[in-house]
Amino acid sequence: MYKQVIIFRNDLKLGKGKIAGQVSHAAVEAYILTSKKDPKAVEGWLEEGQKKVILKIDSKEELLGLYQSIKNKFPCVLIKDAGRTQLPGPDITCLGIGPIKESEIDQFTRKYKLL
Amino acid sequence: MYKQVIIFRNDLKLGKGKIAGQVSHAAVEAYILTSKKDPKAVEGWLEEGQKKVILKIDSKEELLGLYQSIKNKFPCVLIKDAGRTQLPGPDITCLGIGPIKESEIDQFTRKYKLL
Repeated sequence: MYKQVIIFRNDLKLGKGKIAGQVSHAAVEAYILTSKKDPKAVEGWLEEGQKKVILKIDSKEELLGLYQSIKNKFPCVLIKDAGRTQLPGPDITCLGIGPIKESEIDQFTRKYKLL
Repeated sequence: MYKQVIIFRNDLKLGKGKIAGQVSHAAVEAYILTSKKDPKAVEGWLEEGQKKVILKIDSKEELLGLYQSIKNKFPCVLIKDAGRTQLPGPDITCLGIGPIKESEIDQFTRKYKLL
């Protein structure tokens, strides 16, 4: 089973529409990257119904630590907001991963709760 | 200027993570559909930085009315949730459009406010 995982910084106090926009950026960019790096995973994911899981993380440091630990294993994208609306300046908001096999990613992400 | 527009049903009382997941489904599916129907629009949108706008609408009837009025003009996807988590049963949650030219879509969507 394949899934796409998006991990959002819960320490940023953003509105639900802004969160949805940032998470959507991650979903589309991770999809595009994975289409190039692992087209078989994307094909399997589309056939299975495009499972997505949106998780939360407590800080930028923790998000960057997770990114460093998996960026050479899986197709990953960090999303940076320009800071022109709800944030005081440019900042990283979330991390998009895959789609990839659940059995491969769960060991890295199972400790995070649903957003 | 190109943008992707996603219109979410604000009458559904869903959590922010659930909303982000549904809007992400719309973003990825509208991207895939538009890549096939209007690859030039997708190319322009990617070059310009992937503008996304997340809007809200008050009811399913209004969302379906909008869909009927634009479905033959623009690449559109209606997203249906299976109703296994926060909704009591299967239901349509949002509409994803494009990316398309702002000058073409704004006449249909400018009356809706940001989610």
